[in-house]
Amino acid sequence: MSRELDFFFYIGSTYTYLSVNRVAKIAAHEGIGLRWRPFHVRAIMIEQNNRPFVGKPVKLKYMWRDLERRAMRYGIPFKSIPDYPVDPEGLANRVAVLAAEEGWCPEYARATYRDWFLENKAPGDPEHLRLMLSRLGKDPDSTISRANGETIRSRYDSETEHAKQLGIFGSPTFVCDTEIFWGDDRFEDAMEWAKSRQR
Amino acid sequence: MSRELDFFFYIGSTYTYLSVNRVAKIAAHEGIGLRWRPFHVRAIMIEQNNRPFVGKPVKLKYMWRDLERRAMRYGIPFKSIPDYPVDPEGLANRVAVLAAEEGWCPEYARATYRDWFLENKAPGDPEHLRLMLSRLGKDPDSTISRANGETIRSRYDSETEHAKQLGIFGSPTFVCDTEIFWGDDRFEDAMEWAKSRQR
Repeated sequence: MSRELDFFFYIGSTYTYLSVNRVAKIAAHEGIGLRWRPFHVRAIMIEQNNRPFVGKPVKLKYMWRDLERRAMRYGIPFKSIPDYPVDPEGLANRVAVLAAEEGWCPEYARATYRDWFLENKAPGDPEHLRLMLSRLGKDPDSTISRANGETIRSRYDSETEHAKQLGIFGSPTFVCDTEIFWGDDRFEDAMEWAKSRQR
Repeated sequence: MSRELDFFFYIGSTYTYLSVNRVAKIAAHEGIGLRWRPFHVRAIMIEQNNRPFVGKPVKLKYMWRDLERRAMRYGIPFKSIPDYPVDPEGLANRVAVLAAEEGWCPEYARATYRDWFLENKAPGDPEHLRLMLSRLGKDPDSTISRANGETIRSRYDSETEHAKQLGIFGSPTFVCDTEIFWGDDRFEDAMEWAKSRQR
């Protein structure tokens, strides 16, 4: 059975900030492969009328406080609440799809979240994205052009459809075979599941 | 500072099944007092338009699977998905308020959840409630009569209002001073918080 976990995520999800900063190291330490799979969770959530924070200020306020406390617990920096929601055009996520195909998704996702959470540079803002891609050693024009092309758009759509077929409705979600674990706080459950499948 | 945690809960919440079966023992072991405080979370959720499962079958299906896996993890029995939602009149919860005042809330809550989850006897069904109260050594007529009286109704309302003022919007929620922790899966965070406040 599986020695791998699929890490389905959406840049724009808040708790995914914690996951991009902690799960790779733990998975590597445990000998579990981690496949980074960006998908369009917002499309699924809107389709399923699943809008956990729209018009729910009490729950939204709690979410940020909980995220801040969890970041503290994990030793992940947190300064203040950044702009939210972000990436209306989906560009940040399509670049993530390209990065996943080319093997630089972890660095890209961490840099994107760091700039968003610590400097309030919204993912998907083209000007900031160009700067960040340069810092990562990527050619901004070529990268953005491919992220806007049909191949990557189609891959983003098919990954989203695949996630939906698995019953995924939120980000992050960790998948082991057909078992899905939703939320950064279920990563440990997913790891235990994957390890128990190895035997 | 606080050596106590407030355990705000609603009989009818699904994940609260896990909490009523596990948190008292852990808190006692750690020397943290636990105050059982039933409240009307459903009223708060409806007021805040927070309906996490209504019309969301994908999320609902996942919730039950996640709950089943978590029960397995904690060694808490789980047989099959019971009837849900329950206690339309609020009787099961008003009995819990009375039980909390008289000191038998933990046994009552555990028995109620056990019968609901393992035998599909819905909380708040008067006939079953009478049988269960008898098993707990309580007089059914007197107990139900007091649970339906003005004193307990008013107490239930004021506890609900107090929860709302604290920013509580779900069950279970653990409270340490003014810090709130929502979800059975945040009990450990709440415990750590309470312990750090002792120093």
